[in-house]
Amino acid sequence: MIVVKVGGSEGINYEAVAKDAAALWKAGQKLILVHGGSSETNKIAEALGHPPQFLTHPGGMTSRLTDRRTLEIFEMVYCGLVNKRIVELLQREGVNAVGLSGLDGRIFEGRRKEAVKYVEGGKIKIHRGDFTGSVERVNTALLTLLLEAGYLPVLTPPAVSYEGDAINTDGDTAASMLATSLKAEALLLLSNVPGLLANFPDESSLIREIPAAKVGDPAYMAVAQGRMKKKVLGAVEAVQGGVGRVIFGDARVEQPIQKALAGAGTVVR
Amino acid sequence: MIVVKVGGSEGINYEAVAKDAAALWKAGQKLILVHGGSSETNKIAEALGHPPQFLTHPGGMTSRLTDRRTLEIFEMVYCGLVNKRIVELLQREGVNAVGLSGLDGRIFEGRRKEAVKYVEGGKIKIHRGDFTGSVERVNTALLTLLLEAGYLPVLTPPAVSYEGDAINTDGDTAASMLATSLKAEALLLLSNVPGLLANFPDESSLIREIPAAKVGDPAYMAVAQGRMKKKVLGAVEAVQGGVGRVIFGDARVEQPIQKALAGAGTVVR
Repeated sequence: MIVVKVGGSEGINYEAVAKDAAALWKAGQKLILVHGGSSETNKIAEALGHPPQFLTHPGGMTSRLTDRRTLEIFEMVYCGLVNKRIVELLQREGVNAVGLSGLDGRIFEGRRKEAVKYVEGGKIKIHRGDFTGSVERVNTALLTLLLEAGYLPVLTPPAVSYEGDAINTDGDTAASMLATSLKAEALLLLSNVPGLLANFPDESSLIREIPAAKVGDPAYMAVAQGRMKKKVLGAVEAVQGGVGRVIFGDARVEQPIQKALAGAGTVVR
Repeated sequence: MIVVKVGGSEGINYEAVAKDAAALWKAGQKLILVHGGSSETNKIAEALGHPPQFLTHPGGMTSRLTDRRTLEIFEMVYCGLVNKRIVELLQREGVNAVGLSGLDGRIFEGRRKEAVKYVEGGKIKIHRGDFTGSVERVNTALLTLLLEAGYLPVLTPPAVSYEGDAINTDGDTAASMLATSLKAEALLLLSNVPGLLANFPDESSLIREIPAAKVGDPAYMAVAQGRMKKKVLGAVEAVQGGVGRVIFGDARVEQPIQKALAGAGTVVR
């Protein structure tokens, strides 16, 4: 089993991802796709007159402020536009894909964090009424049912809270928890960069390999900026949780999955 | 088994539909929900600067012109906004719902009608490049798998073409084919009117019952205007195909499903 997470930044080659996933699937490789959709969410949110807002947390992480309207736009793009685009591309390749969010069958379950701490002007403030949260549980029963019946699952945030609310959640972390739950041979985190870069955005500074024990090393964390930081944290958890290897790869190229599996990008083991 | 189709016009009480579906489901009633989303699609399409266009066909029916951009907006609203809203409402009621489009697992399969005939200025013209089609096959295997495992399916257009393209399709017809495939005891077509009206939009002119043999009667067809016409045609097919009864009911009220099952609205048997 391999879990392939495809980011939602500009430049992702969805056609290549779907074609490559289909080739592997037809060759007998069990896999699950997880995807994002942040850059298209930003565009649609702007176009609908509800521009994206991001909160910087006390720890330095940023997240999307998700009020009810933002959640609806998020669902439109992630569950509608991007999820069905990928399912359609797979169906065209002859693979019987099934697109699901974390709400469906409670696949990604977690705690809603209604009150979110953020930093503004050096002060810590609290935003209330947010629809965000962290995945704490992956319900693999539905996924196993689908896989055994020959369907390729294509998963996306939002997750579901224990009370049944939709919650915006980090897709990389969800994919990491999924790979851990399934004890996957590999977790691929594909985005619009070749992997983990020592000098971001200099693509020639690609880090080829990180020994698992050193993933949490401050030296590696220092080079991981912005969203890449979350990716590294996800890798730590996955490798510690029993995933064979985590690979940060490039989703802009042809055969992005096979190239990552062959060692292109940053390999964490 | 009952199939409940909830329309996509203004005024639908989704909370009431979900609450009612949950109550029946918990009492052991197997059911599948199918929904529309046309009025919200129109609003989002307007807001995104790609206003809806409708084609009038030579037979008098109208349908949404579905170019690629329209299809994307359609998927955002039907598969994202509306589908996940209903799934979330059911999850809040403690029902483990799974939202799927006709693309997912090829649930609703049909032929893409790329060239669509329409009437303009008294002349018959052809629009090419459309992503529409009619459902010809319902793949019940995935639905049976989900139902037997305790999941409530929440289905929506688009359907999938035999080549794997997403196709905009009429939700009522899809629900009717689904009910027929499952030999459902009842097919409920709930919208923002109390049922079939002899003098539309006079709600006091509700037709209480139509004997199945008379569904195709020109007298009944004459009173069925606009989209209601498609509903009547769907009822003909369903009853002829072995569905116990078809009920046109009101989705604006509390307990809309139980009221329709109790005989409110127009009953076709």
